[in-house]
Amino acid sequence: MSALEKNQSLAELMAGIGVKARAAARVLATASAERKHAALIGAAETVRRNADAILAANALDMDAAEEKGISKAFLDRLKLNTQRLEGIVDALRTIAELPDPVGSIIAEWDRPNGLHIERVRTPLGVIGVIFESRPNVTADAGALCLKSGNAVILRGGSDSVHSSRALVECLWQGLEQAGLPRDAVQLVPVTDREAVGEMLKGLNGNIDVIVPRGGKTLVARVETEARVPVFAHLEGIVHVYIDKSADLDKAVTVTLNAKMRRTGICGAAETLLVHRDALDTHLLPILKALMAKGCEIRGDAEVMRRLPSAKAATEEDWRTEYEDAIISVKVVGSVEDAIAHIEHYSSHHTEAIIAEDPMAVEKFFAAIDSAILLHNASTQFADGGEFGFGGEIGIATGKMHARGPVGVEQLTSFKYRVRGDGQTRP
Amino acid sequence: MSALEKNQSLAELMAGIGVKARAAARVLATASAERKHAALIGAAETVRRNADAILAANALDMDAAEEKGISKAFLDRLKLNTQRLEGIVDALRTIAELPDPVGSIIAEWDRPNGLHIERVRTPLGVIGVIFESRPNVTADAGALCLKSGNAVILRGGSDSVHSSRALVECLWQGLEQAGLPRDAVQLVPVTDREAVGEMLKGLNGNIDVIVPRGGKTLVARVETEARVPVFAHLEGIVHVYIDKSADLDKAVTVTLNAKMRRTGICGAAETLLVHRDALDTHLLPILKALMAKGCEIRGDAEVMRRLPSAKAATEEDWRTEYEDAIISVKVVGSVEDAIAHIEHYSSHHTEAIIAEDPMAVEKFFAAIDSAILLHNASTQFADGGEFGFGGEIGIATGKMHARGPVGVEQLTSFKYRVRGDGQTRP
Repeated sequence: MSALEKNQSLAELMAGIGVKARAAARVLATASAERKHAALIGAAETVRRNADAILAANALDMDAAEEKGISKAFLDRLKLNTQRLEGIVDALRTIAELPDPVGSIIAEWDRPNGLHIERVRTPLGVIGVIFESRPNVTADAGALCLKSGNAVILRGGSDSVHSSRALVECLWQGLEQAGLPRDAVQLVPVTDREAVGEMLKGLNGNIDVIVPRGGKTLVARVETEARVPVFAHLEGIVHVYIDKSADLDKAVTVTLNAKMRRTGICGAAETLLVHRDALDTHLLPILKALMAKGCEIRGDAEVMRRLPSAKAATEEDWRTEYEDAIISVKVVGSVEDAIAHIEHYSSHHTEAIIAEDPMAVEKFFAAIDSAILLHNASTQFADGGEFGFGGEIGIATGKMHARGPVGVEQLTSFKYRVRGDGQTRP
Repeated sequence: MSALEKNQSLAELMAGIGVKARAAARVLATASAERKHAALIGAAETVRRNADAILAANALDMDAAEEKGISKAFLDRLKLNTQRLEGIVDALRTIAELPDPVGSIIAEWDRPNGLHIERVRTPLGVIGVIFESRPNVTADAGALCLKSGNAVILRGGSDSVHSSRALVECLWQGLEQAGLPRDAVQLVPVTDREAVGEMLKGLNGNIDVIVPRGGKTLVARVETEARVPVFAHLEGIVHVYIDKSADLDKAVTVTLNAKMRRTGICGAAETLLVHRDALDTHLLPILKALMAKGCEIRGDAEVMRRLPSAKAATEEDWRTEYEDAIISVKVVGSVEDAIAHIEHYSSHHTEAIIAEDPMAVEKFFAAIDSAILLHNASTQFADGGEFGFGGEIGIATGKMHARGPVGVEQLTSFKYRVRGDGQTRP
């Protein structure tokens, strides 16, 4: 087959997926809450029942990935075991038990002319999710889209094909048991780069929004190629600011948790800003606690004076999401300076202030335009589960439609229902 | 100057507008409700005080447009007079008196670990509005963006340059009196087509969302060129469905109002669907009332049998927004048939059902995915003012972020403020 023929048949395949997704979305949009609940509970039970088959499929993926000499961190994300499968079962059950967002009334009011207006939640339609080789995303994304009445087209990383397929089969079984179309959850069966390109073009209007979950290369590609709305999902250049009013204990424990609990997640802190008046008291206790856990320190000149063993931070450090046990540290003269640094370098994901002075907190909360701002709490709480959303399809750093953890409510739109008794407009 | 040099200097001009807008947006984002209120009241007073100068500027635009031989409908939209200026003053005051959306708490809740989470409204940033030669849009769009804490870049039609400029000067005076940056409202000073192209590319990240208000040519251009989010604003192929349970009086008066009150607005009805069981009783009274007001009827075969003087509708008629005194009329066998026709041909703007049977209404409301659905009320209520929004920047037909009339609340995003007491994540 020539390259052109191959691309044509890929385009046809992808277009067909889009058509089937749109048809399924129409059914799902008016499916009862009971049916969607039943489908998710059925999927959870199937995951538990099929555990051996899923683990065998995952072993195939793991063997192939190990042979390719892929990094340990990558292999860890790819791996499934009994405990992780239980986590997937729990996630499916948690999402099943969330209140059904579709049809819920967000607001209602009466007009002087007697019209009664309701604003009610509706599904978005078809959601395209592009993600790396993390099998659990298959189940989470599929379940969140289903719960919110949307069809989903999943395009997972090529190294997780067997695992993803085994999990999607569980979702299909749940859908079929509940009398819902299995096309509501589709897994792109090819791993060609061009399949992503077709999704970004929107499959002839059959994708309503793209959720990209992946590294900088994917994000950059989405930004240049996408012809449909995207829930932007940039890196997390996350800051912790230690105010001069900070409690020392909180400063140490929160910073340590924000940086070191898990270094690879997007809510992990990357830069620490310390108020100059807190230098004598707070800087070294925090840095020593970090170093004791194996964290590398990259400091500005003032930090270097107090901790000569640190590495000197470069301009590049303030722009870097390490996703590793490294932190950049800078001294600032005021909360305003901290705000200015954050507004300049932040990816508008998550930032924390450690302070006892309420004025400093309010300034920080008012002036910084990031999705999540925390006071005296770890940035690693930036997560749909921790927000009580029951799960998330990603953490949006854009400001359109969705922002922060994207749970079932943010996977909906709305429409107006207006009830009258023959009213005409003068 | 060569074409290339001209384009370079245009690109520089537009880039400069973007930089100034972003800087103003930062100031506006944290401006107090009082200042924004004062700016809008000041602008309203300036419009009243400068009435003569604004009317003189409008006369220049009118003269030039008349010389070009532009259509009457167009000239009518372009024209200002004392009464219309009072309308603009009223609109500015109404928007000034709306509750300030910025900082309002949309939701708040506590987590089991003691974290308190608030979801608060924030401005979107910089909004680009591209519109035809309607001077009042200059004031409405400027005021709605200002109230919601956003900077706005206005690019009006080339035939309203003098009128728009005179109105923007009033907004500037209001801003300056209130101590706010006048760059918060900018009017693109050139009417080149390329200026729109630069805006659609996003001015180097300095436009957050584009609101296009115009005809099919603009919408098509926005769809292919826009590199930033757009509040989609398609035509209004609006349906009225007469159920077999419809009250005859309501059917006649509501249809007449929906079609003929103003034929040129996007909420005007374009297609009438009539249940077969209501043919004998309802069809001719409705059509005769329409014809008595000068409306042309284009019917399907069954309509033609009962009204041989009608014109036969073609497939194209079901897809056409006439914006004129013409209506297409089709007979359907059931509410399900009506829903199927609407889902196939509608632009998802606004649809109405005239019925006394609550089951028919609920089916219609559940199954149709348009921004606004009305029961026993005219489709011409599809308007931000009629919804109680105090005004609108447009009526969105897309489903992302904004839908239906876009008022100040839909010109905002949100962020999360999380308050803790040293919590770390296990």
